[in-house]
Amino acid sequence: MSVAALADAYRTDEALRADVGTDMHLLVTRLFPICRSITGDGVRQTLSVVGELLPLDVHEVPSGTPVFDWEVPPEWNVRDAYVADAAGRRVVDFRASSLHLVSYSVPVRTRLALDELRGHLHTLPDQPDLIPYRTSYYARDWGFCLSQRQLDALAPGDYDVVVDTSLESGSLTYAECVLPGETSDEIVVSTHVCHPSLATDNLSGIAVAAWLGRLLRDVPRRHTVRLLFVPGTIGSLAWLSEHADVLPRIRHGLVVTGLGGPGGLVYKCTRRGRRPVDRAARHVLENHRSRDVREFSPYGYDERQYNSPGFDLPFGRLSRTPHGEFPEYHTSADNVDFVRPELLAEALGAVLDLLDVLEGNRAYRNLFPYGEPQLGRRGLYPTVGGPGAADDVMAMLWLLSLSDGTVSLLEVAERSGMAFPALRRAADRLLAAGVVAPV
Amino acid sequence: MSVAALADAYRTDEALRADVGTDMHLLVTRLFPICRSITGDGVRQTLSVVGELLPLDVHEVPSGTPVFDWEVPPEWNVRDAYVADAAGRRVVDFRASSLHLVSYSVPVRTRLALDELRGHLHTLPDQPDLIPYRTSYYARDWGFCLSQRQLDALAPGDYDVVVDTSLESGSLTYAECVLPGETSDEIVVSTHVCHPSLATDNLSGIAVAAWLGRLLRDVPRRHTVRLLFVPGTIGSLAWLSEHADVLPRIRHGLVVTGLGGPGGLVYKCTRRGRRPVDRAARHVLENHRSRDVREFSPYGYDERQYNSPGFDLPFGRLSRTPHGEFPEYHTSADNVDFVRPELLAEALGAVLDLLDVLEGNRAYRNLFPYGEPQLGRRGLYPTVGGPGAADDVMAMLWLLSLSDGTVSLLEVAERSGMAFPALRRAADRLLAAGVVAPV
Amino acid sequence: MSVAALADAYRTDEALRADVGTDMHLLVTRLFPICRSITGDGVRQTLSVVGELLPLDVHEVPSGTPVFDWEVPPEWNVRDAYVADAAGRRVVDFRASSLHLVSYSVPVRTRLALDELRGHLHTLPDQPDLIPYRTSYYARDWGFCLSQRQLDALAPGDYDVVVDTSLESGSLTYAECVLPGETSDEIVVSTHVCHPSLATDNLSGIAVAAWLGRLLRDVPRRHTVRLLFVPGTIGSLAWLSEHADVLPRIRHGLVVTGLGGPGGLVYKCTRRGRRPVDRAARHVLENHRSRDVREFSPYGYDERQYNSPGFDLPFGRLSRTPHGEFPEYHTSADNVDFVRPELLAEALGAVLDLLDVLEGNRAYRNLFPYGEPQLGRRGLYPTVGGPGAADDVMAMLWLLSLSDGTVSLLEVAERSGMAFPALRRAADRLLAAGVVAPV
Repeated sequence: MSVAALADAYRTDEALRADVGTDMHLLVTRLFPICRSITGDGVRQTLSVVGELLPLDVHEVPSGTPVFDWEVPPEWNVRDAYVADAAGRRVVDFRASSLHLVSYSVPVRTRLALDELRGHLHTLPDQPDLIPYRTSYYARDWGFCLSQRQLDALAPGDYDVVVDTSLESGSLTYAECVLPGETSDEIVVSTHVCHPSLATDNLSGIAVAAWLGRLLRDVPRRHTVRLLFVPGTIGSLAWLSEHADVLPRIRHGLVVTGLGGPGGLVYKCTRRGRRPVDRAARHVLENHRSRDVREFSPYGYDERQYNSPGFDLPFGRLSRTPHGEFPEYHTSADNVDFVRPELLAEALGAVLDLLDVLEGNRAYRNLFPYGEPQLGRRGLYPTVGGPGAADDVMAMLWLLSLSDGTVSLLEVAERSGMAFPALRRAADRLLAAGVVAPV
Repeated sequence: MSVAALADAYRTDEALRADVGTDMHLLVTRLFPICRSITGDGVRQTLSVVGELLPLDVHEVPSGTPVFDWEVPPEWNVRDAYVADAAGRRVVDFRASSLHLVSYSVPVRTRLALDELRGHLHTLPDQPDLIPYRTSYYARDWGFCLSQRQLDALAPGDYDVVVDTSLESGSLTYAECVLPGETSDEIVVSTHVCHPSLATDNLSGIAVAAWLGRLLRDVPRRHTVRLLFVPGTIGSLAWLSEHADVLPRIRHGLVVTGLGGPGGLVYKCTRRGRRPVDRAARHVLENHRSRDVREFSPYGYDERQYNSPGFDLPFGRLSRTPHGEFPEYHTSADNVDFVRPELLAEALGAVLDLLDVLEGNRAYRNLFPYGEPQLGRRGLYPTVGGPGAADDVMAMLWLLSLSDGTVSLLEVAERSGMAFPALRRAADRLLAAGVVAPV
Repeated sequence: MSVAALADAYRTDEALRADVGTDMHLLVTRLFPICRSITGDGVRQTLSVVGELLPLDVHEVPSGTPVFDWEVPPEWNVRDAYVADAAGRRVVDFRASSLHLVSYSVPVRTRLALDELRGHLHTLPDQPDLIPYRTSYYARDWGFCLSQRQLDALAPGDYDVVVDTSLESGSLTYAECVLPGETSDEIVVSTHVCHPSLATDNLSGIAVAAWLGRLLRDVPRRHTVRLLFVPGTIGSLAWLSEHADVLPRIRHGLVVTGLGGPGGLVYKCTRRGRRPVDRAARHVLENHRSRDVREFSPYGYDERQYNSPGFDLPFGRLSRTPHGEFPEYHTSADNVDFVRPELLAEALGAVLDLLDVLEGNRAYRNLFPYGEPQLGRRGLYPTVGGPGAADDVMAMLWLLSLSDGTVSLLEVAERSGMAFPALRRAADRLLAAGVVAPV
């Protein structure tokens, strides 16, 4: 078994994909109720569940630790939070959804008239049934999110506000899983773990990264594969600050997020835009019926940090329809039902296909470069001449034609329009027949 | 005040633009009746009027002076010119329009039968109401231009022909206005002054160049800006031959012409096609709702001479619909009414925007390149996280992401799709906050 | 006379083209009945007929000769071949069409029941009236090709099978015609001679190559032109193996085939894709109203061998609709009527135009590079200024503008959008006037 064989098996075995898709969706469902933020017990609980699938190294970074231009913030935890009417009835209740509380709200216990309260309430007037997701990490504030219909239903009068949170010195939590390869060259897959009860953003990324590790861990690899489960921005920055020794070994990086739906696969390029991971991802997406490859922009997820000019790391991002481009984004509609198992399964397949390319992309030298070697004699060519050439023959001819020792399999794939696995198999056949040699 | 501030003010102050447009149109109206050619008093009168707006250095180059492969021709002046019928009635009269006389016609005083005269008459049969514009600079000849309807109305019989011109040793006249900058690096704006009573070709160019100088002269500049008012071909060649010392200092050049109408802005690239002025102009045009950027061709106005391989100067050309592509071109329909003040005003705005880019296009270094600097702490980032990022934040993020010290603001503009002034302002804010430094 | 003058004459003289087209079609008709294969007397007869038009050097390469990874196969000849029914009636008869016998069928003399026979019969069920073309060069086998209707008409019962062929030690035959030029730099035109009674594939290529030689032989050339008439694959490999000394001198190569119809001209690029022949061919095709320039692929005709990485020779391929893309391909419908004289004539014109470019493509230096030289003084510019510039003037202006000594005429043609011959004529006029000099 190899990464190539794993990718081939996953690509062709529909039942395997269905099983893995179901398992990933179960994981999403299990993690959904937990209230995550950039620090706190919600992240720890999440990593604990992922740790059941995959051995994780969990790191704690103390509050106040300087991280480049930033500082690890106080740890935030929530015991309870609600708005109650005069009758003591909870009209907005954190226990119903972690989205109801603005993330990082400071502790409050007060009574306010509705008009005073309104300044702390966030709704989506154009989507009156949905609760928005809001944060206030770096400005001390508190607030509640609710649907416009909930707000409209509030009668004038006084309301009890309870934000029973703690915002104290503690630590930020992240985890990584390192799967050593034959070489210390690394492929890093990173996903953010700081979003509360939102399913595709980003329990989908967590599920795909976790199952990627689960499938890969028993397969020999050329590259070391490192999976990161980090809170957004400050978490990836903390990881970067603690792994200066690893950074020079990173050959390819990928942020995974938003993979449960909706829409087709979307790849966002690295800042430089023509890195090996970019070319590989473009090729893989085409074979997943998507040409939606986008140039880098400095807004988005942790690719912002990895690609910043000081690090300049080759991190692309795989998602489906990106943040902000679908109506359910950062609302209570991004729930467990919004995420579809088969979409998770396909996304994991795309990541495996990408690893297949990154692992197997090497150059060969045609050992019989003067004219075409006689494939027929070696049982590699049909014996009766007819119209056209079969795909497997074309893959061999392309490889022989371009294999001067400098052209990689991916370049052959790009130029020929054939899929990487077909060329990888052609290389294997020609290698077995002694017609090509790896460089 | 700076060129940037001037360009910002002109872009945002509609009343300023309207005033300047009106003033430019008044200048066009005043200059329209004058009979200009490549030499003669018409050019001198024109430069004298422009000199009321702007201090000009007027140069006289004697007839016979060798200019590269050419020679300054005799000076041509017109006292009178007409064709009169047997009754003495002027049927074609230079006093009605300077277009009626073929430019550089030699003196003639004769009587011809209509059929003999026809060989000297030029009309536009497909535009029977319009007078064409014709020249015969370098072959000694004479002729009249008239509308086809005028010609059709001529009865058979004899006609008196009077071309009371002088074609004698004198000089060619051109002018320049040099606005010194902090550096001796030059931006040259050139316009031709040799066309007679034609409004967009080229009183529009003269008006835009004159007002450009008027607006710029009180503004500190990084570049020295030089405005040239030269007769076409032989005039620009004469300037080139007398300014060999200036040529190595020219960083950017622009020929302005045909800016009064019709159509949107059109930029014609330098011969090399990828000069800084070309990239800047492409960007500016996009922000003026035009993508009509054309490759260089060796036909046109004085960009032909500036770009010739011996000089190889980086001159682009800004116009609206270029010569030969609109029916009024080089006819009496290119008159004062054909030119619209608001189009002149917009064209001047595009030139100012171009100077804004050329003046302000520099590279910055992000001083906090490891991850994103924490903009919120510096009051540069919204404190409550919601969907999307505002344009001013995006401009800062783009700048931070690309500012490794080698990427210029224009390159950031091209890559981000944002307008140059937005990025210039972002650079100013980040500079003030100590986050970036100019390189 | 020069190649340029020949190409000009052929391009403008419709009667010449019609005559040559008729002659080429007569040659196709004469060669059609001959049974060609990769070896044998059919090739010799074909080359003998071509030799009447053009002096050929005929080479014989003995069976068993090693040729890179291959070996020259036994020589194959056919005396007779048929399938006869119980009544002795020939139901499939080689004498009716050379396509009926699978090429390289081994000798057989047997009686088989229809059901046993079927395994050796090849038809085209979707084109029931057509006989396919099949070969079995490198696996010892025999077979017949026939139309589906012929097969359907066969009654059950026994059939006599006679394949009266010889497959014995002999030789492979190819021919070349070398037309020496002023230099030893070579342009090679190669065409395959191994296909039996198929007209466009490849009697069309043979006819065009033969008449190309006939027209060129009396014209002085800068390049040495070499015409190759070789059996496919093993024939071109044999030529390559016997001409190691020639290979370094090959500047440009072209495989010609499939030129009698259907469709417009199609050029297939060299493996590297940006060779001079590729640029020249792209330009020529545009002037033949075709933009069908295709990237290299490793399947096709002998361009496969010439472009293999060990040789890496700059061979493109000129055809009309390529192999496999038209329903008559490799069937009995590719007959003499399928090939049209005027299409052969146009194809030959395209090859001449290509040679015109390859022969005449050089760089010039503008000797008056400071501004435009005064063309009017030299009688090269119209004396009365009017709208626009004529094509001949534009060609001169383009050449002057770009001729810094490094830009070739073809590059001027590509950039200006003008046809190469117009620029070649402009160069000749400017050279005669002493304004440019060849580099």
